[in-house]
Amino acid sequence: MFKLVLIRHGESTWNLENRFTGWTDVDLTPTGVEQAKNAGRLLKAEGYDFDVAYTSVLKRATRTLWHTLDEMDRTWLPVVHSWRLNERHYGALQGLNKADMAKQYGDAQVLQWRRSYDTPPPALEATDARSERGDRRYAKLQPEQVPLTECLKDTVARVIPFWNESMAPAILSGKRVVVAAHGNSIRALIKYLDNISDDEIVGVNVPNGIPLVYELDAELKPLRKYYLGDAEAAAKAAAAVAAQGKA
Amino acid sequence: MFKLVLIRHGESTWNLENRFTGWTDVDLTPTGVEQAKNAGRLLKAEGYDFDVAYTSVLKRATRTLWHTLDEMDRTWLPVVHSWRLNERHYGALQGLNKADMAKQYGDAQVLQWRRSYDTPPPALEATDARSERGDRRYAKLQPEQVPLTECLKDTVARVIPFWNESMAPAILSGKRVVVAAHGNSIRALIKYLDNISDDEIVGVNVPNGIPLVYELDAELKPLRKYYLGDAEAAAKAAAAVAAQGKA
Repeated sequence: MFKLVLIRHGESTWNLENRFTGWTDVDLTPTGVEQAKNAGRLLKAEGYDFDVAYTSVLKRATRTLWHTLDEMDRTWLPVVHSWRLNERHYGALQGLNKADMAKQYGDAQVLQWRRSYDTPPPALEATDARSERGDRRYAKLQPEQVPLTECLKDTVARVIPFWNESMAPAILSGKRVVVAAHGNSIRALIKYLDNISDDEIVGVNVPNGIPLVYELDAELKPLRKYYLGDAEAAAKAAAAVAAQGKA
Repeated sequence: MFKLVLIRHGESTWNLENRFTGWTDVDLTPTGVEQAKNAGRLLKAEGYDFDVAYTSVLKRATRTLWHTLDEMDRTWLPVVHSWRLNERHYGALQGLNKADMAKQYGDAQVLQWRRSYDTPPPALEATDARSERGDRRYAKLQPEQVPLTECLKDTVARVIPFWNESMAPAILSGKRVVVAAHGNSIRALIKYLDNISDDEIVGVNVPNGIPLVYELDAELKPLRKYYLGDAEAAAKAAAAVAAQGKA
């Protein structure tokens, strides 16, 4: 039996400001830092240990990982960064306020942008100052690999190859894996691991900074999953995520 | 022409307490954190950028690197940790006060322990609680690879294979390399790169948290080297390092 631990980054400045973030590289708030440290303390208290860590190339996830590892006295663990674990790209919505958008376009439209499986939000122009196409961290990608918008289906399509090529082989080789990533890159993994339908994934929300443990069989099929710590607090935090973006 | 940047970690708690540290995994002081951030700010201000970072498996070096990368907005860079970049092992002196030892054994003896090229300090017992042989981060090494004491010659003997097998090929492939390491693992690199004699390396001291830049030719022979920032401050900091361990 294998274990896999997924952690959504702690609260970011744009979570706090209720803005669509996507690939914008905002940092954690002090609350987010505390959530990340708590994740590490909880994992340590529960006897978890890891051999390799995965994260995105965005600092809110990396910093969450660093604080987690720091609390576990595992600052020396190898860390693999991949753009494939980045948050879903939010297109032309990046930087805009979720509640403002709900007032302007209605709750239903914002819910669709946030949770539609296969309809992406309006795309950024490639020339938009917010586009990440000139960012050095994506310089080795094909330009078309750097999205201008994504729906969750697009995120799944770039996360799962990385799961198959890097993470799953690491787990199968006996390495204990922790992942610090984002709401939607983690939802992509959850959808794939739990074989959740396109309709049902809409209702799945991941709270910030609470370790989600998967117990996996020899073929990496989930046997059990659970949030570490206070289950009620995790459920409340997930519900709060679901309630974002209402007017 | 290639550039290589070496950074000795910022002040550690045991630098501050004037204790022999070696492989003991002590953290940075607030001053050390500030030194690390300054290193990052200086590198950024001078237009440096990197493709890969190397550090030890000790947290004072890792944290120095993290703060440096953070200030450079490069938290996403790949980081390679290696025990081969650890500080020189200080044997049975680890944890003891340098000035106390100088009072007890004399300045000359302490200077020999600190700077003799080929005479190691008294060894730890493998069963000593201070020994790192049970530490999970060294679990994949042969037991005899985990030292019980080291002179600088021993440190050179484990640093240079890593230079040859990992760092030098990375530089030659065009990657811009930054290294956050320790006084003696950096002295080992300096001795090798500058072809410094066993006698002369005694007089080489590396200040905390000041980036040391090597300009290297196509065969990685040094063309120039210099500390970034205020040269006088770097010289004073190096002299302070040399003065440690007097009674």
